[in-house]
Amino acid sequence: MSSRPAYDALCAHHARVYRLEHVQAIASWDRMTFMPPGGAEARGDAQAELSAIILRLQNDPAVPALLERARQEALGEWETANLAAMERQLRAARAIPEALAERRERLCVQSTQAWAAARSANDWATFSAALAPLLDVVREEADRLGQAFSLSRYDALLDRHEPGLRDARVAELFGDVAEWLPALIDKAVAAQADWPDAPALGPFPADRQKRVCERVMTLLGFDFGAGRLDVSLHPFTGGVPEDVRLTTRYTEADIVPALLATAHETGHARYQQNLPRAWLGQPIAGPASAGLHEAQALTFERQLARERPFLNALSRLLEEEFGPGLDVELLYRLTHRVRRDKNRVAADELTYPAHVILRTEIERALIGGEIGVDDIPALWDARMQALLGVDTKGDFSGGPLQDIHWSQGLFGYFPAYLIGAMTAAQLFATFKAQTPSFGAQAESGDFSALGNWLRDNVWSQGARYDLEEIVQRICGERLAPRTLRAHLTSRYVPAEAAHGGH
Amino acid sequence: MSSRPAYDALCAHHARVYRLEHVQAIASWDRMTFMPPGGAEARGDAQAELSAIILRLQNDPAVPALLERARQEALGEWETANLAAMERQLRAARAIPEALAERRERLCVQSTQAWAAARSANDWATFSAALAPLLDVVREEADRLGQAFSLSRYDALLDRHEPGLRDARVAELFGDVAEWLPALIDKAVAAQADWPDAPALGPFPADRQKRVCERVMTLLGFDFGAGRLDVSLHPFTGGVPEDVRLTTRYTEADIVPALLATAHETGHARYQQNLPRAWLGQPIAGPASAGLHEAQALTFERQLARERPFLNALSRLLEEEFGPGLDVELLYRLTHRVRRDKNRVAADELTYPAHVILRTEIERALIGGEIGVDDIPALWDARMQALLGVDTKGDFSGGPLQDIHWSQGLFGYFPAYLIGAMTAAQLFATFKAQTPSFGAQAESGDFSALGNWLRDNVWSQGARYDLEEIVQRICGERLAPRTLRAHLTSRYVPAEAAHGGH
Repeated sequence: MSSRPAYDALCAHHARVYRLEHVQAIASWDRMTFMPPGGAEARGDAQAELSAIILRLQNDPAVPALLERARQEALGEWETANLAAMERQLRAARAIPEALAERRERLCVQSTQAWAAARSANDWATFSAALAPLLDVVREEADRLGQAFSLSRYDALLDRHEPGLRDARVAELFGDVAEWLPALIDKAVAAQADWPDAPALGPFPADRQKRVCERVMTLLGFDFGAGRLDVSLHPFTGGVPEDVRLTTRYTEADIVPALLATAHETGHARYQQNLPRAWLGQPIAGPASAGLHEAQALTFERQLARERPFLNALSRLLEEEFGPGLDVELLYRLTHRVRRDKNRVAADELTYPAHVILRTEIERALIGGEIGVDDIPALWDARMQALLGVDTKGDFSGGPLQDIHWSQGLFGYFPAYLIGAMTAAQLFATFKAQTPSFGAQAESGDFSALGNWLRDNVWSQGARYDLEEIVQRICGERLAPRTLRAHLTSRYVPAEAAHGGH
Repeated sequence: MSSRPAYDALCAHHARVYRLEHVQAIASWDRMTFMPPGGAEARGDAQAELSAIILRLQNDPAVPALLERARQEALGEWETANLAAMERQLRAARAIPEALAERRERLCVQSTQAWAAARSANDWATFSAALAPLLDVVREEADRLGQAFSLSRYDALLDRHEPGLRDARVAELFGDVAEWLPALIDKAVAAQADWPDAPALGPFPADRQKRVCERVMTLLGFDFGAGRLDVSLHPFTGGVPEDVRLTTRYTEADIVPALLATAHETGHARYQQNLPRAWLGQPIAGPASAGLHEAQALTFERQLARERPFLNALSRLLEEEFGPGLDVELLYRLTHRVRRDKNRVAADELTYPAHVILRTEIERALIGGEIGVDDIPALWDARMQALLGVDTKGDFSGGPLQDIHWSQGLFGYFPAYLIGAMTAAQLFATFKAQTPSFGAQAESGDFSALGNWLRDNVWSQGARYDLEEIVQRICGERLAPRTLRAHLTSRYVPAEAAHGGH
């Protein structure tokens, strides 16, 4: 007889949810990779049915009483953290009435359709009309979540993706970056003024690009016994921790985008593959937050993969596949070119934060009710000009229509991209400081120490700590934009860097 | 307000089950095609969880009362047939207590594992020990099904796969075949005595074999907008009617097995793709039986694809892919060679019925309790000798351990292979008699008339009629082994055929 029957019953309940979410994850992956168009309608119905069943199971009326009783049981440290995560999940689920969730779902579908059409036609009015009612629903959702967790509206949305992170802290961190970023971009662009125009690295057929990408994944420690690489329109990491499915896409003319996307998704994938195995199925075994997930991707893609030793290893792989004569300097320039551009997804590492800051400012004001949907374009134009010196006037498709997020009701997520970049810079700097042998290993093409260090320090901790707690425990301080600044400066304006670069 | 609220509620109930089975089907397909080994355990747990939910939904206690009320409602012809199919499904589900189903599930897993090990080691005793308790459970299941449907034990199992077919009828049909088959095999082998040893058709790389297979599927009318071709260890047709997933496998040395497997699975797939669309989700829209399903595969693979016009079209495809110089006679001999061999799966069209008759005789006696598991090998050896003149003594792996069916508790299914072959012969002969223009179309490489005819006569009828009813409606008589005999005689012993071949 267990001494903690209520806790054990809750664990069994969450394991059931986890198993159903497994099947759902594989169906979603298939939808993005292999499903023929004729299957779309039936698949949508099928996955909606399973979603409804999962939701009903999550809201099992027996759960609150079990939580109440489990709180009286003697639990260890992980168990206590797991119970807290369970309570948090239930409170979030119960805060949203079923009718509101259904209205949101319906408006999301309409808004996403309107977004796709509006983007093709550079037509703000169409999207605006569809987004306005969805925004109202999201505000109501935020109000209810806020009540449940004693948070302000935008904080409640932030907390969903980044537990513990508050808007005041985001404003402080992002305000810091916004102060020094524009000048740093100016200097980087000037420093690259004499770079020759780099030709693309190609053309290479997709099947051979895939072979190189799979070797890059192996170099980065991906376990092919428990995951795969496939193709989708937008790269993503899906599947389940026991069977991680990541994707990239191939442009024959240029292999670099596929390689970088693969390195990025491999970071996400290794996090998934190395979540605490003994706890899989429980909330505590999940990733800690969206920002920490992004940080794993960026530690691999931006920190490690753009450094000289990795580019050298990559050029050796490319030469083995496509023959000798590859110019490593070309690879360097292709992965380091800074460009003032409207587009977030294609943005380089240095200008990327500007795109995130702009979106965060706008969605904060939207959720707070200080602006309405029709105020977005003017604000967008002004802030793009100020932060990045780019003119977006009249180009809605290249402006506020470029991202799918808001059309899907996804507010409070954008900050994770920059939180993740800051975290990645701090994790990588700490890793290197703690691992003096890494330099020589990397020169010889062995990068495994990074993955081992992240596994021991981050991945194996699951959701035990929030992002700033884990950064504090590992790096000895909380989020600190100056580490990101030092990294960007030493990489893009080395003459300016106080130290000798890393 | 609907005039048939109970019937409508039942339809909604079945649509829900159908949607969950959709997700399950995609997960199963993925398990056989793309899943890495590390995912197996979690996938097993996940699919078992979904299976349990589907089972619980099927046994929804509200259903019996709805069925009772729906019987009083005014229903059309299809609706009435649908309601009957619903009642049949429920009666079968309620006949098996949950505890029995669970015991069966557990014994199946053990028995299938024992089978795989025993087959590798040619070890009958190991398999026998695992099969015996499973056989007991299957007998109990058959007793309970038999009680529910007023059928004898083996009839109850047969009826699961081939509704309406009784063992007495199987004995009559198979007894007929067993009488003339051995002599026909003798004559065919003699007629081929002077055939030169045919070399394999290859080597061809897998990706180019795949291209040819996909062109064969197109030639056979497969809709690639609603399905795909992939690779698995054993070819199968899975997925859902809206998105049919079929597989084949490639042996570089020889393209013929991949081509024939593809033609076979395309027959299954087209049946799935052309089930009555307006009724999808309802029991009446399912395939009528295992034998009728097999018949569609065999009409394509054995009847159509082995005829001269199709072989000519195939050789043109092969020449387009691999260059000129293909010997059509080689293709003919490779697809028509008759061999006395122990192996069912690799057997040719003429010897195949012997393998089915043998298995049917043994499983009938096993289920009836006239023999026990340890009597199988001696009976196997004796009947293989009598029916096929092949010695299997001491070779369990090449004998009763070659098939996975019994180890999975699958009894009553084997007859479908020969019922399907008979049905295919009758359907194809009727089609040709009713379609005088087909000969000239086929010569020009257009085989679409066959698919159109099957769609109109068979596929679009779903499960409205049982197999013999549908054969009667289309061919003007019920199953008649002499049509299969005439087909086999004219193809393999043309000198003996009464008429001039077809």
